[in-house]
Amino acid sequence: MSAAMTPASLPAWDLNGWSKHHLGRVEDALSRWVGIEAPAGLGDAMRYAVLDGGKRLRPLLVLAAYEAALSAQSTALDVTQRSGADEAALRAACAVELIHAYSLVHDDMPCMDNDVLRRGKPTVHVQFGEAQALLAGDALQAFAFELLTPDDERIPAAVQAHLCRQLAHAAGSAGMAGGQAIDLASVGLSLTEDQLRQMHRLKTGALLEGSVMMGATCAGAQATARAALQNYGAAVGLAFQVVDDILDVTADSATLGKTAGKDAASDKPTYVSLLGLERAQQYASQLLEQAHAALADSGLPDVRALAALADMVVRRSH
Amino acid sequence: MSAAMTPASLPAWDLNGWSKHHLGRVEDALSRWVGIEAPAGLGDAMRYAVLDGGKRLRPLLVLAAYEAALSAQSTALDVTQRSGADEAALRAACAVELIHAYSLVHDDMPCMDNDVLRRGKPTVHVQFGEAQALLAGDALQAFAFELLTPDDERIPAAVQAHLCRQLAHAAGSAGMAGGQAIDLASVGLSLTEDQLRQMHRLKTGALLEGSVMMGATCAGAQATARAALQNYGAAVGLAFQVVDDILDVTADSATLGKTAGKDAASDKPTYVSLLGLERAQQYASQLLEQAHAALADSGLPDVRALAALADMVVRRSH
Repeated sequence: MSAAMTPASLPAWDLNGWSKHHLGRVEDALSRWVGIEAPAGLGDAMRYAVLDGGKRLRPLLVLAAYEAALSAQSTALDVTQRSGADEAALRAACAVELIHAYSLVHDDMPCMDNDVLRRGKPTVHVQFGEAQALLAGDALQAFAFELLTPDDERIPAAVQAHLCRQLAHAAGSAGMAGGQAIDLASVGLSLTEDQLRQMHRLKTGALLEGSVMMGATCAGAQATARAALQNYGAAVGLAFQVVDDILDVTADSATLGKTAGKDAASDKPTYVSLLGLERAQQYASQLLEQAHAALADSGLPDVRALAALADMVVRRSH
Repeated sequence: MSAAMTPASLPAWDLNGWSKHHLGRVEDALSRWVGIEAPAGLGDAMRYAVLDGGKRLRPLLVLAAYEAALSAQSTALDVTQRSGADEAALRAACAVELIHAYSLVHDDMPCMDNDVLRRGKPTVHVQFGEAQALLAGDALQAFAFELLTPDDERIPAAVQAHLCRQLAHAAGSAGMAGGQAIDLASVGLSLTEDQLRQMHRLKTGALLEGSVMMGATCAGAQATARAALQNYGAAVGLAFQVVDDILDVTADSATLGKTAGKDAASDKPTYVSLLGLERAQQYASQLLEQAHAALADSGLPDVRALAALADMVVRRSH
């Protein structure tokens, strides 16, 4: 995969190597942290829901935004400050993944989407029962906030509190959970493009944008960079959903690792049902351009990982 | 109700007046804050789950512990510091109630306890459907952490981060959710008293103890007071559950506002099934003495509200 937007002053670079390195760190951290303090059955369900699965897009967005914002630091952090910032970013990366994972566990339950397959494996409630799935989701959400607030003086309290504020807002009724509620109420209705966009801004966009902004918080990004990163996050968040809707009609279940054609079957409004396939694809490309433009406006010296992740979101096959 | 443990130097005092004042503040705050940013249906379910119901024991424990710890401050806080501390305590009081409320919403769902009556009203899933109940619970948990981390410079970031850490730990897999998982796995099993105590320490004790400790955090309590308050919280938390088990067999559904005799009917181990009614009542009295002894050890000048709340927990009729 070729690197997008590589300034001449920066060495050649590829997303695969970068992702592999950081995914290893995230997997290792999640494996060390998730479910360890839980009673056996609950811990098993929590770990099953989180480990060995998923694209880890949200953690990668946290870490990419962190690196980009860090590249603008005019004065170098000392060793302790830097190790604290690195640790905060790793914790934020894991925390957003826990929120994402818990939302999938609850979404898959019979009273919601009633899905039995996720990432090619039986869903949590199929494997562990509904009650345990409900509790595992609840415990994963709580643990996300616990991860953000360690008793670790290297991570400034202001950073810890800000990360909690950002994650809680992105996950809650004005973010992800609110979007899911609108989605629930929209089945069988014909939405306008504005209404559909508003639903997805909350349902998936809020946490993706939140991931970017949490990375920025860990690096102490300034106002101009923050505003640009927010635009980037909003564009990537929406593009992700548009592409999801496209893949729901163009890919098969094996490639997706979940049930394809689900949206159409359940009469849910999607970008494809609203715009048609071709215009939905054009819209995704347009959002990708917006994301790159926002990065160009950010004034950040090194936005290579963020640029490559935006490309990946739009060009992915699953 | 007579005030317990009133030193001669403090004026006569009654729990009813104190509770009424603070319950008014908590109700008003919850009403102003909960579900306001949510899409209509979700917001309705969140507010239904939280407003106009419950004993509000956890908020009162937060505020009583806050007042007790504040009474030991050797140097007075300035007006801004004091208003920030008051605001933090009110937010913490609401946050613990949101966690409690969400746990009841999820507990009542068909895949858990399948309860249709709560506080004399239809449970949330009966009123709004299971999917909305699931989302409302999820959103209430997120909102608890959002309440603890306002963009308000009067509340020090260290206090905000500490409150999140305490609440996340109390609510999660090493606290409330963990206890619920043990409870789930214990139906039909015969537990030892140690195992039963461990389950309840997590299931209900962790959040009650957490409430006390969050109040202490808002007032900047010192180590000796914190240790004593932790002992108080642990004793009250356990006493609460022992009394709950007693009331399940001695009270009727109308008094409880929920289905009585539920534990016995579902073959759940309880203090009454393990110890018998009389020894369970003795154990509750013994825990009440431990709570009062912890307050005496705290070195805090004014523990009247905490003492009265401990009495209320053990002597309540519902």
